[in-house]
Amino acid sequence: MSNRAFNFCAGPAALPEAVLQRAQAEMLNWRGKGLSVMEMSHRSEDYTAIAEKAEQDLRDLLGVPSNYKVLFLQGGASQQFAEIPLNLLPENGTADYIETGIWSKKAIEEARRYGNINVAASAKSCDYLAIPGQDQWALTPGAAYVHYASNETIGGLQFDWVPQTGDTPLVVDMSSDILSRPIDVSRFGLIYAGAQKNIGPSGLVVVIVREDLLGKARSACPTMLDYKIAADNGSMYNTPATYSWYLSGLVFEWLKEQGGVQAMEARNRAKKDRLYGFIDASGFYSNPISLDARSWMNVPFRLADERLDKAFLAGADARGLLNLKGHRSVGGMRASIYNALGLDAIEALVDYMAEFEKENG
Amino acid sequence: MSNRAFNFCAGPAALPEAVLQRAQAEMLNWRGKGLSVMEMSHRSEDYTAIAEKAEQDLRDLLGVPSNYKVLFLQGGASQQFAEIPLNLLPENGTADYIETGIWSKKAIEEARRYGNINVAASAKSCDYLAIPGQDQWALTPGAAYVHYASNETIGGLQFDWVPQTGDTPLVVDMSSDILSRPIDVSRFGLIYAGAQKNIGPSGLVVVIVREDLLGKARSACPTMLDYKIAADNGSMYNTPATYSWYLSGLVFEWLKEQGGVQAMEARNRAKKDRLYGFIDASGFYSNPISLDARSWMNVPFRLADERLDKAFLAGADARGLLNLKGHRSVGGMRASIYNALGLDAIEALVDYMAEFEKENG
Repeated sequence: MSNRAFNFCAGPAALPEAVLQRAQAEMLNWRGKGLSVMEMSHRSEDYTAIAEKAEQDLRDLLGVPSNYKVLFLQGGASQQFAEIPLNLLPENGTADYIETGIWSKKAIEEARRYGNINVAASAKSCDYLAIPGQDQWALTPGAAYVHYASNETIGGLQFDWVPQTGDTPLVVDMSSDILSRPIDVSRFGLIYAGAQKNIGPSGLVVVIVREDLLGKARSACPTMLDYKIAADNGSMYNTPATYSWYLSGLVFEWLKEQGGVQAMEARNRAKKDRLYGFIDASGFYSNPISLDARSWMNVPFRLADERLDKAFLAGADARGLLNLKGHRSVGGMRASIYNALGLDAIEALVDYMAEFEKENG
Repeated sequence: MSNRAFNFCAGPAALPEAVLQRAQAEMLNWRGKGLSVMEMSHRSEDYTAIAEKAEQDLRDLLGVPSNYKVLFLQGGASQQFAEIPLNLLPENGTADYIETGIWSKKAIEEARRYGNINVAASAKSCDYLAIPGQDQWALTPGAAYVHYASNETIGGLQFDWVPQTGDTPLVVDMSSDILSRPIDVSRFGLIYAGAQKNIGPSGLVVVIVREDLLGKARSACPTMLDYKIAADNGSMYNTPATYSWYLSGLVFEWLKEQGGVQAMEARNRAKKDRLYGFIDASGFYSNPISLDARSWMNVPFRLADERLDKAFLAGADARGLLNLKGHRSVGGMRASIYNALGLDAIEALVDYMAEFEKENG
């Protein structure tokens, strides 16, 4: 019987128990080699095999075409906010950004330090409760790229469609929904994702970039932030975050065993349907997001009376339902239900929510 | 009985077995909380306590004065090569660099992209076998800072003294010798060290910086590379490498239990004396570095006949003496003997070297 809690944290987030068990078993002595993976030279044969397998498994899972590089970098999505314009935005060029919440806004703020940024559409006018359709976007002809966040972790707002940008490269922050369902990588110029939701531990960011976008970094771009340098060196221009890369590889193996992103899609659909369905039916809990923009990964909800928030959280904690407090900028509750959480976690949460409503509603 | 090998890797390097055991025990369920440290929100109470204790332990170990910030960042020392000039070198200023090997050279190359770099001294003229004394340095009056690497991991060249730079901030790459013996932090403006030698797993870099040097970043410096932003946010402007930070904290606890850096100094002195002593007495093995510049951490050595290298390495591997191959740029052998290796590792190595010499010398 597991003594593990259900962890609804937005990130760093729950990892599959099987992955942690394997990491635990291999901690001091990987496959009889007498050392931990974190003690291996990144250039050793054993580690190279670990790193390459992880990349290949990720390629398999997402169907990454061969003209894309997969990079395992550091600094999280926040560093990408600068890295993207430093690599893709010419000094006098313009990039289009879509603003749908806190993370896309942060990306915009950082990019503005490097050139002309056009906010082609914003969800602000509808209070970040819905995503403006592409017919309302004011895209710039000849823009260097179009940037959006496919899922806003804090607001709980997710695209259920992929923008059409023709020849303009589409750049997406997929930190909180990568690997949660199938995607067509060929629709994107660049995909990036901080690892700490659906990939692995924090301290790693995965970048999937079309090869023709490499080699355009500005002269002022730090070497470590130049995608082409990273690509030419197999993400080992310097020592990468080797252990995080290895753990991510274990997650990719686990995902394949589960049936890949197709299976995850079915499971995640069932999870979010159960939770939103319960919330909508309750009359006590509420989620304000437009139905077609509700996040499958992050479900913010409010209690009918916010004076009950504290008691709700304390009761949840006592049951091993952890980290349900909403982000400080929005308040209320938030259940982050990434790949590592199964339907059992949702059932446990819904059971508790129903009971709490009965006692306090 | 341990089935762990003696790992002489230059980095990522051996970690104390006790640290790995504790990480293993806590992997799935940290202190009964039902989750792994790598699944904790970086802003949670539990994780904040872990992070703060790690910082305090490091401060205690090195005696970091209160007017210094300790930062836990990402990107390794290589990212610091850009981060330092971006934060400390004014557009028209000059910085002095001391070149003693491959790593200080890389730091110079990257810094040159951001301004005037004066190589005030170079070990090149003596083939990187000795360190030029400060009386031979051509320092620039009014330089923004003076940069050097206290230990060259590849060449095996280490300063056994601290440069005197008066009011000019002294910046040091201490990646491969931090925590190996006491230092006087107040002599430095900024100390940085990639974690993967004496601190913890790769993917983390520790920066210790005097407060008055903060807040001078260039306008083009990416937010994530701005020391002041990192300092003002307790290294949590975004999600840090939480698990690596935790593991580093376990290493700091272990170091304190061992008696701190004073005890490490005695142990490291005994280790290097035993190994260099054996090499010098052998007539079969050799190390060419000037006696006062020999590294305590990285001991490169050659066999009398390089055609024996392969057999030497194979025999070492078979005995569980791993990663003794020298860096590809210099050839020969290298034993990296960081804090986590005890005198028993050195004795095992010397035993093997003696036997190999007897059979092949």
